[in-house]
Amino acid sequence: MSDVENIKQLDLDNNLHSWSKQGDLNPEVITKAEGIYFWNEEGKKFFDMSSQLVNVNIGHGNSKVIAAIKDQADKFPYMGPGTAFAAKSKLAAKLIEIAPDNMEKVFFTIGGAESNENAIKIAKMFTGRHKIFSRYRSYHGATYGASNLSGEPRRFVSEPGIPGFVKFFDPYLYRSPIDFASEKEAAQYYLNQLREQIIYEGRASVAAVVIETVTGSNGVIIPPDGYLKGLRKICDEFNILLICDEVMAGFGRTGEWFACDNWDVKPDIITFAKGITSGYVPLGGVLVSSEIAEYFNEEKLMCGLTYSGHPMGCAAGLATLEVYEEENLIENSRNMGKVLGEKLEAIKDQHSSVGDVRYIGLFSAVELVKDKKTREPLTEYDNDQEGIMAGILKKLKNAGFSTYFHENILIVAPPLIIKEEELAVGLQILDDVLNEVDLMIA
Amino acid sequence: MSDVENIKQLDLDNNLHSWSKQGDLNPEVITKAEGIYFWNEEGKKFFDMSSQLVNVNIGHGNSKVIAAIKDQADKFPYMGPGTAFAAKSKLAAKLIEIAPDNMEKVFFTIGGAESNENAIKIAKMFTGRHKIFSRYRSYHGATYGASNLSGEPRRFVSEPGIPGFVKFFDPYLYRSPIDFASEKEAAQYYLNQLREQIIYEGRASVAAVVIETVTGSNGVIIPPDGYLKGLRKICDEFNILLICDEVMAGFGRTGEWFACDNWDVKPDIITFAKGITSGYVPLGGVLVSSEIAEYFNEEKLMCGLTYSGHPMGCAAGLATLEVYEEENLIENSRNMGKVLGEKLEAIKDQHSSVGDVRYIGLFSAVELVKDKKTREPLTEYDNDQEGIMAGILKKLKNAGFSTYFHENILIVAPPLIIKEEELAVGLQILDDVLNEVDLMIA
Repeated sequence: MSDVENIKQLDLDNNLHSWSKQGDLNPEVITKAEGIYFWNEEGKKFFDMSSQLVNVNIGHGNSKVIAAIKDQADKFPYMGPGTAFAAKSKLAAKLIEIAPDNMEKVFFTIGGAESNENAIKIAKMFTGRHKIFSRYRSYHGATYGASNLSGEPRRFVSEPGIPGFVKFFDPYLYRSPIDFASEKEAAQYYLNQLREQIIYEGRASVAAVVIETVTGSNGVIIPPDGYLKGLRKICDEFNILLICDEVMAGFGRTGEWFACDNWDVKPDIITFAKGITSGYVPLGGVLVSSEIAEYFNEEKLMCGLTYSGHPMGCAAGLATLEVYEEENLIENSRNMGKVLGEKLEAIKDQHSSVGDVRYIGLFSAVELVKDKKTREPLTEYDNDQEGIMAGILKKLKNAGFSTYFHENILIVAPPLIIKEEELAVGLQILDDVLNEVDLMIA
Repeated sequence: MSDVENIKQLDLDNNLHSWSKQGDLNPEVITKAEGIYFWNEEGKKFFDMSSQLVNVNIGHGNSKVIAAIKDQADKFPYMGPGTAFAAKSKLAAKLIEIAPDNMEKVFFTIGGAESNENAIKIAKMFTGRHKIFSRYRSYHGATYGASNLSGEPRRFVSEPGIPGFVKFFDPYLYRSPIDFASEKEAAQYYLNQLREQIIYEGRASVAAVVIETVTGSNGVIIPPDGYLKGLRKICDEFNILLICDEVMAGFGRTGEWFACDNWDVKPDIITFAKGITSGYVPLGGVLVSSEIAEYFNEEKLMCGLTYSGHPMGCAAGLATLEVYEEENLIENSRNMGKVLGEKLEAIKDQHSSVGDVRYIGLFSAVELVKDKKTREPLTEYDNDQEGIMAGILKKLKNAGFSTYFHENILIVAPPLIIKEEELAVGLQILDDVLNEVDLMIA
């Protein structure tokens, strides 16, 4: 058996893979990754059109971040959360510098789920209330708290649910039951519905409203005009904290440092992970406002984990933030995002199977339908028994286009370093495969 | 302001620290760590007598693991969970090799809490049941699921709790209401109580019993003779899964690879983290038996996280396991554990403030009391308002002995590389400080 075959066999024999029937697995053996590409065992090259799990924002193999990782490994790879050291201090200060100006302190975790878990604990402690509002078309992680925040089917395994976790509807205009005259009118409709629901649930018992600022895997759902400002207003009215989950949307993905910057809205808490290190070392965190930070001067913060403020994660994070700045990646995301948007609109026009395209910065989704007019999804919600979407993904992959899907939606979110020519070549593959999908539904 | 002062000030200005009132903080600025020691900004040297958070088992600055980290950073620091690559395949295979022989596959996470979260989800999926039993004197992590598993006060902030999470009493013989004639008799008493409780809760609705094989931060509570075998028997009787949380107790801490090896008991699921990489890179995981692994060939595993099977964590883990073997650290833990036990017994004899000492391998606890006869704890449970234990910890630290406490209990758990002379010097510091504690209660 060759070394590569051996690696695949050892993997299949000994590893459990996420969100899969293990009997169906046929993982690529990865041997190399560089920039927006990675290679499998046969030397086949893939466009990483989802930045893996929308986290490798700076691309693969960035030498500056790798050097920072090595340097911290030589100093000390681990030190407990109660200590201070250069990488953690500097990263925290830098984060506060780039975050909305009401943010004062950061609590470091090791990933997005843990960040959301800690955010809701902080909100409960600060407000003394226990109810948490979040949305149906959302994913906030797979641990119990994060999973109960999530609205989509991946939460079902974490039920019976946690008391006090309440779901509301997203402003998902493409599938709204109402044909709104404007985004503003739509925003107002969904805000009114939320406000009413908060009152029915008991305005004085709601600690926080948690949203993905731009909903990620559940379809890149972008808040309509006026939605976020209106949400901020409702939260202020009832002294409810607004928590923006920017795990996927943060760090330039939408063309701004944080997605909430697109609408000049200041949340009370921002959670992050993924882009902070581009995945090079696990890291996440919770940014809190001055009011919340000051509350915990005199009250015990009942949060903690062995790897909070991990030196390796902090060193990688600090270097990654410098890469965003030095390589103008936030700006590139904005500029390339315009190109991406134009190309996706053209794709939508040309394909009968494309019902909607949504995009902001380099964060986009292609929603597949059986019928453009009725908008009937290509696969029924939570019920794609034939594996139609997996089949489409496989076609894309065979053609060198790597991404992932959720329900009837393909995610397109390349690394923020992508160039216009590369975007054109990559999207041509998508275009070609969508021709086949058009035939499927014809 | 010097660079060191600046690092401390940046930390205080921008970071939230675990389990603390932020106004009370005065973190050490760490500049160096090597072997069983670390140094602060003033060049003061500390014995790391808790291996930080009982995770730096191989000591600080191990060159082999650091080299492996650097090597993986050069290859690719990140690749998504759906792929296969050398470090992940080899680490998984090695873990299955050292684990109890009924274990077949591993699901990698990034830490202990995430491991326990995924273990209970796996148990619920496999059994189709929803109730989870765990113990009062326990800590399984701070995310909602892990926190609701935990019995101790750190769980209160994650309440209202998750339906179906049931607590039972630990075989904590030092504070048992009954004066048992033998460990065996004690084990039977606690087992009978648990069996009765399972029946009252509904034998057919219990998915799993979760225990720390040796309870860690809550006092190094070691299962009495016959307890684990009896627990295995009860679980078999009712088709309940036995989940051993070995996050702290695993990887040589108790003188065996896994703590359950001390009693030849085979759990259905083992969770781990900490010692797997000695903390050098965040990593954790869930080991599952053949029956469970095979179930997920045809059923979807509803678990996942961005950093599952992280290349950097896997590379560090593989090198760390090799260090345990090459440096005979499991054996050293067993041998030095005997020395530690003897010294702790002497300490108990000599100090009126020491009610009990418990130890297995290099995992030990010193339980402080006001009165040796009545066993009244030095500080009331969940109510040390005067900060007596924090004061004792500070005295130890000033004398160069770094550890942590929980309730009225000091943890002593040095890196597994410690030598007899070092143990003697370190414990002399403890001995001296305990003289002061004796005077406090006199």
